[in-house]
Amino acid sequence: MKERDLIAAISERAAPATNSSLLYGIGDDCAVTQKDSKNVLLYSMDTLIESVHFDCAWHPPELLGRKAVAVNVSDIAAMGGTPQFILFSLGLPPGFDENWALKLSDGVVDGCNQYDCTLIGGDTVASPTGVSISLTVIGEMAADLVLYRHGARAGDIIYVSGPLGRAAAGLELFKRGLGDRDEFGDFYRAHLDPKARTDLGKILSSSGLVHSMMDLSDGLATDLAHICRRSKLGAVLYRQQLPFDAVLEDVAALVDMESLKLIIGGGEDYELLLTVPPHATKKLQEVVAQSGDLLYPVGRMTAGMGVTLVQADLQNNTQEIPIEFLGFDHFTMR
Amino acid sequence: MKERDLIAAISERAAPATNSSLLYGIGDDCAVTQKDSKNVLLYSMDTLIESVHFDCAWHPPELLGRKAVAVNVSDIAAMGGTPQFILFSLGLPPGFDENWALKLSDGVVDGCNQYDCTLIGGDTVASPTGVSISLTVIGEMAADLVLYRHGARAGDIIYVSGPLGRAAAGLELFKRGLGDRDEFGDFYRAHLDPKARTDLGKILSSSGLVHSMMDLSDGLATDLAHICRRSKLGAVLYRQQLPFDAVLEDVAALVDMESLKLIIGGGEDYELLLTVPPHATKKLQEVVAQSGDLLYPVGRMTAGMGVTLVQADLQNNTQEIPIEFLGFDHFTMR
Repeated sequence: MKERDLIAAISERAAPATNSSLLYGIGDDCAVTQKDSKNVLLYSMDTLIESVHFDCAWHPPELLGRKAVAVNVSDIAAMGGTPQFILFSLGLPPGFDENWALKLSDGVVDGCNQYDCTLIGGDTVASPTGVSISLTVIGEMAADLVLYRHGARAGDIIYVSGPLGRAAAGLELFKRGLGDRDEFGDFYRAHLDPKARTDLGKILSSSGLVHSMMDLSDGLATDLAHICRRSKLGAVLYRQQLPFDAVLEDVAALVDMESLKLIIGGGEDYELLLTVPPHATKKLQEVVAQSGDLLYPVGRMTAGMGVTLVQADLQNNTQEIPIEFLGFDHFTMR
Repeated sequence: MKERDLIAAISERAAPATNSSLLYGIGDDCAVTQKDSKNVLLYSMDTLIESVHFDCAWHPPELLGRKAVAVNVSDIAAMGGTPQFILFSLGLPPGFDENWALKLSDGVVDGCNQYDCTLIGGDTVASPTGVSISLTVIGEMAADLVLYRHGARAGDIIYVSGPLGRAAAGLELFKRGLGDRDEFGDFYRAHLDPKARTDLGKILSSSGLVHSMMDLSDGLATDLAHICRRSKLGAVLYRQQLPFDAVLEDVAALVDMESLKLIIGGGEDYELLLTVPPHATKKLQEVVAQSGDLLYPVGRMTAGMGVTLVQADLQNNTQEIPIEFLGFDHFTMR
């Protein structure tokens, strides 16, 4: 049983909401509830487990704490909201290193400061065989600006907010003991210390020009499939439009992986994935450029089902390949 | 380093709130934030780890799921609030039993229904060596009715809302392979399937007669010490007033433990612990009696520091014993 199957089963079991203030439950980056006449609250929870989501051998505790916050806050960014509060539950094995635990906590607090949110609670528990870190993040935004996964329409242009595959490449380097090369600093940082795109998320939701949005946590292929499923649409990705990164090609060769696999299958980019109606793209690019950000068009939503990759060969003949979901599955040990 | 020391260290590290809607952060059963002009939101998060907080050998998954909800909802009851939403993060080991996971999820949903709250999100992750269950609960209540730990005053009468030590006794029976005796059914149930006192909590907060409140999760000795510390007071417990339970005496003899240790040191009762000014006790007992509930007076808040147990011998000579904290520490493996 895969993660998504289990989540689907749990979701089916969840009773229909009897609470009228629930606007959206399981199935998006955040749950959404009505706060008052104008605003909604956003909720998300993520757990990081030692040896599954992180390896203490190369992950300094301060950065791990900050990453735990960024990963959660990214779900708020994915709706276009503002993070406000964090709850932090820490499981520690017997005989844990106190300094390590305090540095991790410093990282969590630092992450909270970075995104201007406040640590308001949580707990610490014994965890027999390894560290576990669960966070809940609470955010807020205007009710009429929330961006869901299900809002895409056929013909929408698909954008990503930055280069892809760097975090996955950084992880592959660490796994192979190649964690100390100056030229790959961006890739190490992408894995160890990702940034949530909260500022850009707010710009995008406020623009009123975006149809659907989510964050890239499991890789473009998997995450775009979520937008497709929720929007009952398909999508085409254009190989030649995926952000090109010469150093990523070097890393891919070094770790003996296809760069494409890192780019569309690599998780933990924490960039935003969004769809925009064609008539609004120019205006949106202008809005985004004002903050110094860039959006990369990578494909188009289609009326069909499934995600297809279109790539051209040297003779400019195009080839259409249905994408099997190459993203990480959380139940697969990395 | 003990759990409370680590929490204190994390709490010190947490930056002072820059968010004016935060009314109370780390240090009580729930964090409290302003929702609107009349109401506040309550947040709590708790994690249960296999072989620390539960043992699959005797804990049926449906009851474990329901317990995970009750344990979290109990923190809302402790403030006098109404639970509304649950987030549920489930860590599962490789090759986990699908049926078991689905039954656990059924239990979580059942627990949500029981307390009239809705499961709105969470995640599932791989957890290499055992099951971990993190829940976040979100509640709501009128801003002027919130009951904190820090509200106790010297002279207040200390009450508990039910018999104590049953869950701890049930656990001791299971640990000794004595989990199948009809006469101990209440004790097994107290451990496997505790109930959060949400209805009583609301009656108590609405009464306006209570000074401080919390739930009994770590044992009366430990939990009362929290009220003392937060209220900058001491407390006296009267041994002869602690709810007497003849069957508990039998269990204590059978498992070769002092019954007192189960009663004031045993965790997971999930009853309410509250302090009430003497002039209000009669009125409060009447209010509570209307719902068929009972409150048991067990002691008194004092101007000094520390918790003292007063017990009388057969000649009615009283003896005062400073209580070392006998409650479970979450960092101690059970």
